[in-house]
Amino acid sequence: MAWEVFSFIGTVAFAISGAFVALEEDYDIFGVYILGMVTAFGGGALRNVVIGVPVSVLWDQNFLFGVATLSILLIFYFSKSVISHWNRWGTYFDAIGLAAFAIQGAMLAVKMDLSIAAVMVAAVLTGAGGGVIRDVLAGRKPLIFKDDIYAVWAAAAGFIVAIGFYKNDLALYALLVATATLRILSFLFHWKLPHGKVTNEQ
Amino acid sequence: MAWEVFSFIGTVAFAISGAFVALEEDYDIFGVYILGMVTAFGGGALRNVVIGVPVSVLWDQNFLFGVATLSILLIFYFSKSVISHWNRWGTYFDAIGLAAFAIQGAMLAVKMDLSIAAVMVAAVLTGAGGGVIRDVLAGRKPLIFKDDIYAVWAAAAGFIVAIGFYKNDLALYALLVATATLRILSFLFHWKLPHGKVTNEQ
Amino acid sequence: MAWEVFSFIGTVAFAISGAFVALEEDYDIFGVYILGMVTAFGGGALRNVVIGVPVSVLWDQNFLFGVATLSILLIFYFSKSVISHWNRWGTYFDAIGLAAFAIQGAMLAVKMDLSIAAVMVAAVLTGAGGGVIRDVLAGRKPLIFKDDIYAVWAAAAGFIVAIGFYKNDLALYALLVATATLRILSFLFHWKLPHGKVTNEQ
Repeated sequence: MAWEVFSFIGTVAFAISGAFVALEEDYDIFGVYILGMVTAFGGGALRNVVIGVPVSVLWDQNFLFGVATLSILLIFYFSKSVISHWNRWGTYFDAIGLAAFAIQGAMLAVKMDLSIAAVMVAAVLTGAGGGVIRDVLAGRKPLIFKDDIYAVWAAAAGFIVAIGFYKNDLALYALLVATATLRILSFLFHWKLPHGKVTNEQ
Repeated sequence: MAWEVFSFIGTVAFAISGAFVALEEDYDIFGVYILGMVTAFGGGALRNVVIGVPVSVLWDQNFLFGVATLSILLIFYFSKSVISHWNRWGTYFDAIGLAAFAIQGAMLAVKMDLSIAAVMVAAVLTGAGGGVIRDVLAGRKPLIFKDDIYAVWAAAAGFIVAIGFYKNDLALYALLVATATLRILSFLFHWKLPHGKVTNEQ
Repeated sequence: MAWEVFSFIGTVAFAISGAFVALEEDYDIFGVYILGMVTAFGGGALRNVVIGVPVSVLWDQNFLFGVATLSILLIFYFSKSVISHWNRWGTYFDAIGLAAFAIQGAMLAVKMDLSIAAVMVAAVLTGAGGGVIRDVLAGRKPLIFKDDIYAVWAAAAGFIVAIGFYKNDLALYALLVATATLRILSFLFHWKLPHGKVTNEQ
């Protein structure tokens, strides 16, 4: 059951975040639809390729396709009234998608008996992959490379799932809330990791 | 037979469109070659991964590799005389590739007994995928996200193939002409789909 | 043995080149890590998908993951003292990675009994793929499309491996040195291939 819940939340959140970016870039309705779908399903498809899940699995998700389509259309039609503060709301939805998909990807990798390192990679790919594809297609700098802490939270969630949390649904839900909250706080308060020191004298 | 015809037309058209973009960006001959090949074969490779065709199939296309190579070299060597109106001609070739590959991708998906929705996705991925890869590699905004109607025609062609057209070669050729024509008209007369209304007050 | 040596050299060189680009773009430590890892393993993963190697093979490389991680961390912590001439050093490491991975990818394709053309494609994908992914993610024009001769050397190395060099380890090492040297000389002395002639009169 938890698996379905995380898939549902991640799909809705990323579909909306992709639609937001597309609306900001003033795409037409089909462009909004495509960017929303690619954001919602791109991270999972990328993870499936990289950890060796048959991609045909992608096609057993008719319910999620419908959910994503509906989310995108709602955002499109209510864009005027709903989105007046994209920057903040877009980041919130992205944070929820990041957390939900990181945990979902990690659960899948644990089920496949992968190593802890591979579970963390699956968490980062699934959680951050859709957003990276979204940003590259829209010609933006990927959120994952921006200053505020981002993918580390996905890796941490993956680690926690790998060391045993995946057996307890309630613990997983708490992890979802914690991961999304930490990402949002990172955005709001500009929590940063150390940077290197490059002096470019050429 | 129709399958081979669509593969041939799509490959030539996209190889040329990729070479055009590379020439516009002033790449050297190998850069022109690579962008042409990636445009010609990238959409099909992407579709194969997404709908679960073994990618090794890619390598049974020696004839098409030769055809694409020849098309690119011809464009390269005659670039001065041939291309003085890139913007228009590039869009025409892209439109032909879009139509041919959308139908070819849809035919493959129908052969694999996929659902109508999956056939439409295969049509859009195959028809628009190569162009998206081309535009991302060249640092351009993908045509698919520009204002004039584009991928909708691929989706529509996929739908029509899915509901029965695939049994009749003549009908498929007519569909090719109609799809490419509708895309070109969209470009020439700036046919647009509705846009969302975002007010960015931050 | 040669296979392991080429994998090792290519992984270290590309991990460092990815870290260099990330440092130049002022990413934080996790961004530096991700771009380094994607550069080191992206080309091989892309090749595996395209020539049909099961991607799960990616996960049997724990030693290389550790090596890449260590390389990136070293570069990160010593970035101030080490990198004052990024542009030159980044290009050198990229050249070594290009040469090592082109040969490694070609060896794999030869083992799989692919045609000479496919071996050359595998060499270019493996050698240049990681760098293209690195540059696209960082929003840069891919090195492969810049003016100085680049991927041709990977294709040439692939050709030489395909016609028999792969049987002799010493010959392969000599090919590595020759390929990297030719790429570096291309960069230093701006060796160029012919360009097309496009006049854009619209």
